[in-house]
Amino acid sequence: MRVMGVDPGLTRCGLSVIEGGKGRQVTALDVDVVRTPADQALHRRLLMISDAVEYWMDTHRPDVIAIERVFSQQNVSTVMGTAQAGGVIALAAAKRDIDVHFHTPSEVKAAVTGNGNADKAQVTAMVTRILALQTKPTPADAADALALAICHCWRAPMIARMAAAEALAAEQKRKYQARLKVQRARLKAAK
Amino acid sequence: MRVMGVDPGLTRCGLSVIEGGKGRQVTALDVDVVRTPADQALHRRLLMISDAVEYWMDTHRPDVIAIERVFSQQNVSTVMGTAQAGGVIALAAAKRDIDVHFHTPSEVKAAVTGNGNADKAQVTAMVTRILALQTKPTPADAADALALAICHCWRAPMIARMAAAEALAAEQKRKYQARLKVQRARLKAAK
Repeated sequence: MRVMGVDPGLTRCGLSVIEGGKGRQVTALDVDVVRTPADQALHRRLLMISDAVEYWMDTHRPDVIAIERVFSQQNVSTVMGTAQAGGVIALAAAKRDIDVHFHTPSEVKAAVTGNGNADKAQVTAMVTRILALQTKPTPADAADALALAICHCWRAPMIARMAAAEALAAEQKRKYQARLKVQRARLKAAK
Repeated sequence: MRVMGVDPGLTRCGLSVIEGGKGRQVTALDVDVVRTPADQALHRRLLMISDAVEYWMDTHRPDVIAIERVFSQQNVSTVMGTAQAGGVIALAAAKRDIDVHFHTPSEVKAAVTGNGNADKAQVTAMVTRILALQTKPTPADAADALALAICHCWRAPMIARMAAAEALAAEQKRKYQARLKVQRARLKAAK
């Protein structure tokens, strides 16, 4: 499974692609940070991000995109830009019929370090070790994008099991309601 | 000037196009609300909105897009979806080299009703009167999209004056710094 990890942002947007193998085996294929100038209009910055992300998707052809889920507990204006960038990235995936999954920062930290409250240095250190990189990925956005992709690789089997369980529950509900409908019709006919 | 007004949202996204004439003259050309099903994945909903907005832009060929500026003081999860939808809409404009302006809800209310704290009913009533519509636009998202476009039409001259003043100030600063550089060079040479 080829996963593209994205740490969305207007000023810096971290991008990574990793390949998941057997078990917990993961290999880094690419990592970079896209920057857009702060003095540009918002819609032009979003276009720069969209162009870069579309190029990555068409070059690396990932099976799935893992994006960091934004929370509004941070700085208000930053969060809005991050959400807008995330929307543009999810759109690029939808246009190519690539699945998108969102992971919260604590899910990502817990996946790679075992601690949902790990700091940036711990995440970077673990990402470097897990992927057996020669040097630490910098800036933090690059390490975060790699951590996101690793997190998705490792959570994917669980996500698939949960989706299967949900589908089964929906199917059972549908069958139950169909049976109920038949019984009601019989009762009505008997009256 | 043809203005496309957008009240962004995942569940309901209000779209309008109005034509601004002399003074405060405005004519409604189109208004609609795009809906996306809540049970669909986020990236697919964003694609539906993007497709609808791109179709509107290519059909109506607006000169400028006015989008409601989102604040995070509202419901957190709604705000994120609204920001993501707004990002996708701004991107569609950037791809066509159409300018984008954001207006806050209170700027819009103040423009059409004279009161920045006006309620939805007052906004709808004033929009209906200003555009001389036969019936009130519904739902509120449709009225909001029209109000946004009116607001932009009426604020456009002021926005243009402010941009001109900023450009002038930047030019003067540039000239002043160039003169300063020359004087410093002269002083250095004189030493």
